[in-house]
Amino acid sequence: MHHTFRLIIDCPDQVGLVAGVSQFLADHNASILEASHHTDLQTGRFFMRHEISTDSINLSYDRFIEEFTPLANHFQMEWKLTDSSKKQRVALLASLESHCLVDILHRWHTGELHCDIPCIIGNHPQLKQFADWYKVPFHWVDFKTLGKEAAFKQIEVLLDEYKIDLTVLARFMQILPDSLCKKLAGKVINIHHSFLPSFAGAKPYQQAYERGVKLIGATCHYVTSDLDEGPIIEQSVKRISHSDSATDMVRKGKDCEVNALAHGVRYHLEDRVIIHHNKTVVFA
Amino acid sequence: MHHTFRLIIDCPDQVGLVAGVSQFLADHNASILEASHHTDLQTGRFFMRHEISTDSINLSYDRFIEEFTPLANHFQMEWKLTDSSKKQRVALLASLESHCLVDILHRWHTGELHCDIPCIIGNHPQLKQFADWYKVPFHWVDFKTLGKEAAFKQIEVLLDEYKIDLTVLARFMQILPDSLCKKLAGKVINIHHSFLPSFAGAKPYQQAYERGVKLIGATCHYVTSDLDEGPIIEQSVKRISHSDSATDMVRKGKDCEVNALAHGVRYHLEDRVIIHHNKTVVFA
Amino acid sequence: MHHTFRLIIDCPDQVGLVAGVSQFLADHNASILEASHHTDLQTGRFFMRHEISTDSINLSYDRFIEEFTPLANHFQMEWKLTDSSKKQRVALLASLESHCLVDILHRWHTGELHCDIPCIIGNHPQLKQFADWYKVPFHWVDFKTLGKEAAFKQIEVLLDEYKIDLTVLARFMQILPDSLCKKLAGKVINIHHSFLPSFAGAKPYQQAYERGVKLIGATCHYVTSDLDEGPIIEQSVKRISHSDSATDMVRKGKDCEVNALAHGVRYHLEDRVIIHHNKTVVFA
Amino acid sequence: MHHTFRLIIDCPDQVGLVAGVSQFLADHNASILEASHHTDLQTGRFFMRHEISTDSINLSYDRFIEEFTPLANHFQMEWKLTDSSKKQRVALLASLESHCLVDILHRWHTGELHCDIPCIIGNHPQLKQFADWYKVPFHWVDFKTLGKEAAFKQIEVLLDEYKIDLTVLARFMQILPDSLCKKLAGKVINIHHSFLPSFAGAKPYQQAYERGVKLIGATCHYVTSDLDEGPIIEQSVKRISHSDSATDMVRKGKDCEVNALAHGVRYHLEDRVIIHHNKTVVFA
Repeated sequence: MHHTFRLIIDCPDQVGLVAGVSQFLADHNASILEASHHTDLQTGRFFMRHEISTDSINLSYDRFIEEFTPLANHFQMEWKLTDSSKKQRVALLASLESHCLVDILHRWHTGELHCDIPCIIGNHPQLKQFADWYKVPFHWVDFKTLGKEAAFKQIEVLLDEYKIDLTVLARFMQILPDSLCKKLAGKVINIHHSFLPSFAGAKPYQQAYERGVKLIGATCHYVTSDLDEGPIIEQSVKRISHSDSATDMVRKGKDCEVNALAHGVRYHLEDRVIIHHNKTVVFA
Repeated sequence: MHHTFRLIIDCPDQVGLVAGVSQFLADHNASILEASHHTDLQTGRFFMRHEISTDSINLSYDRFIEEFTPLANHFQMEWKLTDSSKKQRVALLASLESHCLVDILHRWHTGELHCDIPCIIGNHPQLKQFADWYKVPFHWVDFKTLGKEAAFKQIEVLLDEYKIDLTVLARFMQILPDSLCKKLAGKVINIHHSFLPSFAGAKPYQQAYERGVKLIGATCHYVTSDLDEGPIIEQSVKRISHSDSATDMVRKGKDCEVNALAHGVRYHLEDRVIIHHNKTVVFA
Repeated sequence: MHHTFRLIIDCPDQVGLVAGVSQFLADHNASILEASHHTDLQTGRFFMRHEISTDSINLSYDRFIEEFTPLANHFQMEWKLTDSSKKQRVALLASLESHCLVDILHRWHTGELHCDIPCIIGNHPQLKQFADWYKVPFHWVDFKTLGKEAAFKQIEVLLDEYKIDLTVLARFMQILPDSLCKKLAGKVINIHHSFLPSFAGAKPYQQAYERGVKLIGATCHYVTSDLDEGPIIEQSVKRISHSDSATDMVRKGKDCEVNALAHGVRYHLEDRVIIHHNKTVVFA
Repeated sequence: MHHTFRLIIDCPDQVGLVAGVSQFLADHNASILEASHHTDLQTGRFFMRHEISTDSINLSYDRFIEEFTPLANHFQMEWKLTDSSKKQRVALLASLESHCLVDILHRWHTGELHCDIPCIIGNHPQLKQFADWYKVPFHWVDFKTLGKEAAFKQIEVLLDEYKIDLTVLARFMQILPDSLCKKLAGKVINIHHSFLPSFAGAKPYQQAYERGVKLIGATCHYVTSDLDEGPIIEQSVKRISHSDSATDMVRKGKDCEVNALAHGVRYHLEDRVIIHHNKTVVFA
């Protein structure tokens, strides 16, 4: 994996913007491994992502920030620079279903997901065994005993203590309180087991079965206070037919969930996602 | 194309049913080209479709009906026998968009869709040119001048006069009145330009754009009085991203529509669809 | 999961065959959960699979065999009856790549794959850690020290000792000797990392990169003496573009491999695959 | 549809390249509707496509060429500037199968494909009827009477006379002679009815049937002297099973062909394809 800086920009579209940024990069001898642009013609908003080889550029991270700031201010950018060698710290929250948790852990273990996973939190103790194998501390937060409010307070403390950058709800069957959604805005990813906006809420497979759809799916999205309404990062679908039993639908659905979540988390970790209102730009 | 009888059965699941039917077929020397079964374990309903070579069987269509009736009654079957050489009479209803109409006409012209198309009805005159080329009578029913009630009365008369078996709404932008939905139950197929139940109603692409979904689609379904709620026959989806403009979405959507409608119509014409409550069994 | 008998039949197509089988089943009060037929019109061969609830049928496994044999002989059937509660014994063979191994193990662990996994064999020791977690004995067969012939002899002994029914090559990077292919015909499943017949042999991703294809894939097939030429059970593909690096192609390819292998193994374990010459009938 | 200039660049990757181009565009007030870059890290080659609103830029087409040339030379660019309002002139060549021809014609008719179609050439007279409807001159080149050499000479003359920019082989069942392949390099698109490199050559569906693959497909590629070996623009696949007859495979295959060809032709017409050795960069 190349060591890179990633420059992410979101600003009003303006003539001279790309030239300004590219000239800055050229002036510092930056070799660009990947560049993606998008102009939203409806809102006049411009989005840009550069992946820059650190071998090439004659700026440290701090000097880049310092020297780029005037240009950023000039163009009214919301922007960030990330260093690919600084791994984000990811917390996995899960309940009883293991498929998403295990898939994320395995992709992390083999290096496909470039991050640290300092903790796993469960509202049930059963998945501890997987955490143990991967040598990740497991915290059982007992919602039944504590009550929902205290339980989420405990989770919040854990996320703070572990200095978590990204929280992944890997089939975590508890609804985050408003306050936490707001505090962690853009930093919590959920996997919903339907192709939203169809079948929001509970029991999507049952809903899908009853409606007789011919495709089922899963949706990976950022969590907001509006349940199942957050910005969508990725969706995955599979074909079903009358001959698929409830078991078959769950099995196919799980594959969709694993697939959509793995993509969504990777896009986030590689700084490929920009949230814009309630939608995402994903430089996949 | 083989000349076949198609035997379609829908009845309570019972031991001895398949044996009874198969024995009947064997007794008359029937060679079976295709056989499909399905048991809905939740409702205990059984569905069966046989495609029987007429070369092999020693029964005429009428004698088959006569001789099979006692068995059918014994097992409380809803059933039908169709003769593949008797083409269904299909009316196409369209408005201004030509893609679905032209696709169906071309598949009919090349023999992929085995039916007669005795008339095309438009609520605008523009698509007459396509009808002319395919030498199909075109009827312009002028909703603006006539008003909706009289216009649909005229359509109803046309469908009766042409002895239409199946009405296909090939992007026909008028909502059928209740009475017509009921009269033609199970005999009107619509193509909706979203992956229902998402984005029912008007302007699905705009809705999809605003929600920021990563897949768009189309749904082919039977028309019922509940708008966009009828039994789904087929769905088709395509991947979209932030970089797809409204034009791109419409283009991709059209391909989904054409695809889902062509499948849905063919399945219906080949007697592959059984409606069961608000769902379908499709022996694709 | 229902306890079922699965009756798998492969014989010349004949009038009276389905009737004979169905009558036999009805006579013994069999409730059929799933029935699939296929006639190969080119070869005149008939294939049939029944999944029969053991709750319903008034025959033990042994009596079924005994009583069905005359009928089977009459119709010159190749056939088998399996009992869903008798788990097949599966050996997993792997090398260094863990993705297929871990996926199969997890699906087994969660009950999606209904089998026993009494041993894992590696030609490298590295994957032992996964075997340990799942508490499956791991055997390192050291090809380098032993030489290929002795190593495969050792594997053969292990497969015999563990009474293995199905051997799964989960990215096992050694070519089975002819003798073993023949001995285990129809009982060894491999995953090849290309959409065969494209890019058979080594380094399929490099081949795909050089040819500039827009789709990559994976193929799950039975192993025969003709390398990469055995009967295909399942294939899976993903879209790629010029912007996919070698790393991206490997990542996408892995997802295809996992997907195709999981399907192929499940179809085999559920007796859904019938090998016919160099092809398969898969009652998915 | 916006009126745009499209600037297509292919050159050695160099620091300062993007800055140079962007600064040039900014200096002339260009508003960029779409920008795509790609660096081939293996060959160190850089590819870039800009779609520039002509409303914004203060340069005529000719002045743009003139003023950009020094920069282009400096960076050793192979480049071109196209004007979206200048339609390419497309010749369609077909034989007896109408599906690809009719699909291209319809997409052209509805404005999805932005080009002129001044002539259709057939080696059989049957498809003239479609040409007539769309009011496109049809030329029957009678290969049987003329012999292959004279026939292709006649086609070459037609392509010259009509000043054709792009020749589309819409299931044209004749192999272009070497000389024509070379003369029209990068300007002839073919649709092959398999997912190349599988099943190159004749009768791909029969080959696919015999090999027992579970996916069939189609490949849209540029024509070169090496039959079926030219740079691939787009591929499309569909799932098949044992139950698909030869007719089913042809039907599914046709849908793949129509799909892949429509995409390939559109990408070419919108200057989204850059040929690089025997591969393509497609800024889809």
